[in-house]
Amino acid sequence: MIQDECADDLKLKWERLQQIMQKTFTDGCLLSVDVNLYYTTGRIYNGYFYLPAEGAPWFFVKRPDGLLGEQVEYIRKPEQIAEIFAAKGLKMPEKLLLEADELPYNEYVRLLTVFKPRETGNATALMRSVRMLKTPWEIGQFRISALRHDQTYAGIPALYRPGMTDLEFQYEIEHLMRRNGSIGLFRTFGANMDIFQGSILAGDNAETPSPFDFALGGGGSGPFAPIGANGTKLEEGMAVMVDMAGNYTAYLTDMTRTFSIGKLPEPAYRAHQVSLDIQQEAERISRPGTPCADLYKLAAGMADKAGLSPYFMGTRQQAKFVGHGIGIQINELPVFTPRSTDVLQAGMVFALEPKFVIPGSGAVGIENSFLVTDTGIEKITRAKEDIINLL
Amino acid sequence: MIQDECADDLKLKWERLQQIMQKTFTDGCLLSVDVNLYYTTGRIYNGYFYLPAEGAPWFFVKRPDGLLGEQVEYIRKPEQIAEIFAAKGLKMPEKLLLEADELPYNEYVRLLTVFKPRETGNATALMRSVRMLKTPWEIGQFRISALRHDQTYAGIPALYRPGMTDLEFQYEIEHLMRRNGSIGLFRTFGANMDIFQGSILAGDNAETPSPFDFALGGGGSGPFAPIGANGTKLEEGMAVMVDMAGNYTAYLTDMTRTFSIGKLPEPAYRAHQVSLDIQQEAERISRPGTPCADLYKLAAGMADKAGLSPYFMGTRQQAKFVGHGIGIQINELPVFTPRSTDVLQAGMVFALEPKFVIPGSGAVGIENSFLVTDTGIEKITRAKEDIINLL
Repeated sequence: MIQDECADDLKLKWERLQQIMQKTFTDGCLLSVDVNLYYTTGRIYNGYFYLPAEGAPWFFVKRPDGLLGEQVEYIRKPEQIAEIFAAKGLKMPEKLLLEADELPYNEYVRLLTVFKPRETGNATALMRSVRMLKTPWEIGQFRISALRHDQTYAGIPALYRPGMTDLEFQYEIEHLMRRNGSIGLFRTFGANMDIFQGSILAGDNAETPSPFDFALGGGGSGPFAPIGANGTKLEEGMAVMVDMAGNYTAYLTDMTRTFSIGKLPEPAYRAHQVSLDIQQEAERISRPGTPCADLYKLAAGMADKAGLSPYFMGTRQQAKFVGHGIGIQINELPVFTPRSTDVLQAGMVFALEPKFVIPGSGAVGIENSFLVTDTGIEKITRAKEDIINLL
Repeated sequence: MIQDECADDLKLKWERLQQIMQKTFTDGCLLSVDVNLYYTTGRIYNGYFYLPAEGAPWFFVKRPDGLLGEQVEYIRKPEQIAEIFAAKGLKMPEKLLLEADELPYNEYVRLLTVFKPRETGNATALMRSVRMLKTPWEIGQFRISALRHDQTYAGIPALYRPGMTDLEFQYEIEHLMRRNGSIGLFRTFGANMDIFQGSILAGDNAETPSPFDFALGGGGSGPFAPIGANGTKLEEGMAVMVDMAGNYTAYLTDMTRTFSIGKLPEPAYRAHQVSLDIQQEAERISRPGTPCADLYKLAAGMADKAGLSPYFMGTRQQAKFVGHGIGIQINELPVFTPRSTDVLQAGMVFALEPKFVIPGSGAVGIENSFLVTDTGIEKITRAKEDIINLL
């Protein structure tokens, strides 16, 4: 069941979860959502992971056949978990955490009927807060993703051919991503966040509002996929923002670079430089204890000082954040909003993405992934940061 | 809000939903899950669609900015829906349907608090049953997907190069899919059904059980994506099963073809021929009124008669269905299982996939998408059905 290479990492994660459960008088936590199973067991399966506040976890597996290990039990339905507890003389949890922000209503209610806990709590909230602080193994996975992400971005200029549309350009980048080891899947938290491998924004498509809670929008390839590239023909004078997934391991890095078709009007370069300046200042002030809201205020303040507030994080619809935690999902904690109460802590990994949309040119700016260290922050995505002319 | 091209189609869908709601004394139905919003509004947005049992629907939109139309109201949070109802003197629903198998528990409970219905029902079940019978516009979308799916499959042999792995082969097929208009997104119903653009199974990887409820398995690229291609080097004597998504519109066609690296052992060809025979017999007996279970029994019976039961739909783990409805998601209703109580009805669109896994060779067999007509079934995916030798 548990692969040797990540056994120590899993034990560390279980300990962190159990410490919080003990402090909050919680008896057990039941997980079944893909990202939480991957986090706690190192694999995705169809079934449940049960972690008691003390002692070893249980693995209740529906599929696949053939998993072996301590406390691995095969079941067809969750009702059998209660039978197994009874047969083994295990105490049923009085306070049980369930994934209240992820499990469908009917599934949650079914589990309540199985466990009949006296009290429930939100396993989604627990998992998101524990997953916020990465383990050494996870940080290693980010570093692998970051290197391959850099490698893909270095190959982007060679993929451009005059006359392409943004979508055609994206197809070539996706192809290169896969050949560089992209796992394809791009996991997000929350409803209706359908995005495929990332986003390319060319010219004024960057102004189009999207339904999703990503930094920028774009019309997308149709009303069934309303985000990113929309078939815009790449023409001289356009900025082309590439924000494609760093999904080379299960841990996603996030990186945006700006390209241009020929020379852009001067305001686009000026705004891009403000993004770089914001990043530099953020790197200077960030350390454990820095409020995440301060980074938003820093960015918004520098945008304002440069007279660029109307273009900061969009025009017709402006995102109200300038960064976000990353992990197995692209939008983990913390969030970098004006009202965030989070502070930086060593072990957080986050993306900072000060961006501007300049009407007539398109989106410019930068995004990188950072690790919070004991003394500051370390940039782990390292592709060249200037606007790169594709012509 | 509503695009002209699909306005008539949406009205037809609303009428079908309202007829059922009226018959079941339901006052209203609130939808917010991406596929249900796309089905009922022609687009995906962040917000809610409210359909009363009689009269025109309401569109409560959080994002994107700028949608216009009759009964379009912008909100920040669902509590405002109740305020809008009160301000407009609209009656709150006493019996309300919510997406109980899709909405997260906390979101569902929040909506209960907003609407305080006397009685609730399951909008997921309603939507899945109504979505099972496709409208003329939807059938047109399937036909577009099917043509492009055929076009991609016809291009597959030219993508093979000796020495490739299954994953490398898949990357080339994905690239061709995108250039042929694939939207990338591949939507599934249910938890933990993460799959990226489809599946390629080469040689004995086809025997590896997967956690997912798809027809066959495969180890996948890692424990974070445990389905399909696993890096197997394509070698002479291997069967290579290609089951890549037909996602060229929002409506997915499903088609599988078997390729070979050189010549396969005779049992592989024999099993493939049994799949073709099952399909032919299914086409002969299928018409409105045919029980879906009969198609499963037909397939399992013919497999048994050929002495192939141990290889039917897998070996170490065998799928207990031989087909499934298709639509905006790849696993819609009806299901073709031994105990299915569904019967074929005109307007259903489904995939039939009798497959065998032959140890030492790999997966063989066929899958096509069919439309149920007034008199029988029509095959809409039409690529060549023999085993195609890639050498």
